[in-house]
Amino acid sequence: MGTEKIIEQLNTLIELSSLINSTLDTKEIRKRAIEAATRLMDAEAGSLLLVDQETGELFFEVALGEKGEKLKEIRLKKGEGIAGWVAEHGEPAIIHDVQSDSRFFKTADEKTAFITKNMICVPVKTKDRILGVLQAINKKHNSFDDDLNIFNALANQVAIAIENANLYQELRETFYSTAQALAETIEKRDPYTGGHTKRVMNYSLAIGRAMGLLKKEIEDLKLAAILHDVGKIGVRDDVLLKGGKLDPDELEKMNMHPKYGAEILNHVKQLRDVIPGVKGHHERLDGKGYPDNLRDGDIPTIARIIAVADTFDAITTDRPYRKALSLDTAFEELRKNIGTQFDREVVDAFIRAYKEMEIVL
Amino acid sequence: MGTEKIIEQLNTLIELSSLINSTLDTKEIRKRAIEAATRLMDAEAGSLLLVDQETGELFFEVALGEKGEKLKEIRLKKGEGIAGWVAEHGEPAIIHDVQSDSRFFKTADEKTAFITKNMICVPVKTKDRILGVLQAINKKHNSFDDDLNIFNALANQVAIAIENANLYQELRETFYSTAQALAETIEKRDPYTGGHTKRVMNYSLAIGRAMGLLKKEIEDLKLAAILHDVGKIGVRDDVLLKGGKLDPDELEKMNMHPKYGAEILNHVKQLRDVIPGVKGHHERLDGKGYPDNLRDGDIPTIARIIAVADTFDAITTDRPYRKALSLDTAFEELRKNIGTQFDREVVDAFIRAYKEMEIVL
Repeated sequence: MGTEKIIEQLNTLIELSSLINSTLDTKEIRKRAIEAATRLMDAEAGSLLLVDQETGELFFEVALGEKGEKLKEIRLKKGEGIAGWVAEHGEPAIIHDVQSDSRFFKTADEKTAFITKNMICVPVKTKDRILGVLQAINKKHNSFDDDLNIFNALANQVAIAIENANLYQELRETFYSTAQALAETIEKRDPYTGGHTKRVMNYSLAIGRAMGLLKKEIEDLKLAAILHDVGKIGVRDDVLLKGGKLDPDELEKMNMHPKYGAEILNHVKQLRDVIPGVKGHHERLDGKGYPDNLRDGDIPTIARIIAVADTFDAITTDRPYRKALSLDTAFEELRKNIGTQFDREVVDAFIRAYKEMEIVL
Repeated sequence: MGTEKIIEQLNTLIELSSLINSTLDTKEIRKRAIEAATRLMDAEAGSLLLVDQETGELFFEVALGEKGEKLKEIRLKKGEGIAGWVAEHGEPAIIHDVQSDSRFFKTADEKTAFITKNMICVPVKTKDRILGVLQAINKKHNSFDDDLNIFNALANQVAIAIENANLYQELRETFYSTAQALAETIEKRDPYTGGHTKRVMNYSLAIGRAMGLLKKEIEDLKLAAILHDVGKIGVRDDVLLKGGKLDPDELEKMNMHPKYGAEILNHVKQLRDVIPGVKGHHERLDGKGYPDNLRDGDIPTIARIIAVADTFDAITTDRPYRKALSLDTAFEELRKNIGTQFDREVVDAFIRAYKEMEIVL
């Protein structure tokens, strides 16, 4: 390869590395890595197979390129196929005639009507483990023979990006799980959790997705749903744990909890966009809710969503004074209160999500 | 510049980019960026100045190279010096004779007896803001004239790495702050916080650092200190909020809280190494603590640390049945109980940290 060509490749690699490292979202990294493999190698298609760290299987999470979208579902057992061989040995492979290679796993071609001719395949690895395998398929001109170093360098950048994204994701999960464990306990004031928080979170997320909320809004919604009842810490045992209906005085104390919740979370500046969901989850469209008697559009979207999710869970689980009611009754109850208590768009999205099996009840 | 030289530089850039992007620790990124700038530019020294996003000032956080360590304290006002000019305009600068450049800020040279001759200085920026300025000082051979593209490419990688580290750090702070807000409220069962959790966390961290704990241990300690009292959620109001000394029966209920805390956090698999600190913070070296009557070395280090921090805070703050006692009394109390209740190494570390002003009381 001429030096001009080498310089061009190196510059492309640098540009693609920046792109791959500019996100901490694993899906986005995978997409960019596949595009980069295809472009850097001047190939017809590219793919990134990731190792399932529990089973050792390789899976195609995404696969772009001309016909790549169809590859989404394929899994290779440990050691299966050329990619499996590469992952198992931690060594690269350049195959000039894939069809005659005994290791070749034909299922992908069969499912897609794509014909794999030649291939370069390198491990994506960190110091201590193999994260996956990066492939480029069907070089458009010449062969992959001179490409090993540069493709390895790309795989190295992909490994770094995936590792960073994994660390970020792990921290996020620790955060959510810890908040959930604490919130769940606060809600019941008991170290044994009942699952209300988790269910309200799941319902809220299903509604939010059905409504097409943006990523940032979904994240705020998730945290607000987890934390919606933390203000119950400010309600005394005699009210919170009472085994029957509350009298007006007790109800007034109980109804302080959205306000208390907001006060607690006001200490965390990063939760600025989460607090309105906590504070407003007992507001009603007709202004008869609490704590601020907000109306209609003045009630933040995430609060309107949590209100529906929270009520639905209250109806469909046992209460101290009655047994759980049926799903039909619950949906009927939500529908009946559209416009007064609940937002039509939110209730519709919930029913849609339920019908599309986005929610397991 | 010859093509061989260009290829060598590009390969070096790729190697250094991997290194810079392989960490989410801002300090480590800065150190690696400075080493990379020096090496890639074949210069005598390098530095990375970061923008203080609040004041617009540029500051030298670290500065390696031959005499760089002395630069730690320097701050440039907005627009001051060559670096200030670069940060303000978002444009690079190559200066052949720094001493005759009117923008040159001489303080750094004066403080270090280092003589800046020539310099390449480029902005470190993301799509929407300037994070800092990367410099290389005194080219060893020739001039910086051909280096602009490659140095800009390095600065771009540094920007990506800093941005990722910032996102990770922000998420971590959100996590800690949220856990702290919830834990603090649980401890008092009141939406208005008293600060016990925060103080115990600060004392614990000071002790941990004085004992030379590893980074991972410090992180576990921090979370355990924040969460040490969350089990109090399982103690009823009549005991938790009693305004006087507890009778033996009440004390028994109160003493369930470390066990409850462990039960709550057992739901979070990522907190595996944190839980022993929560569960063991009322154990005593003589085996007379609770809940497991552990002895000496069987008590996890982080639990032994939190025990000291927790007791110290209890002594030095007002209780329902007595006023806060003096620091001298508190330290005396800790010392007196070395070997029976407390670990000598922990108490010594605490006193050392206090004397070295690592703790503000």
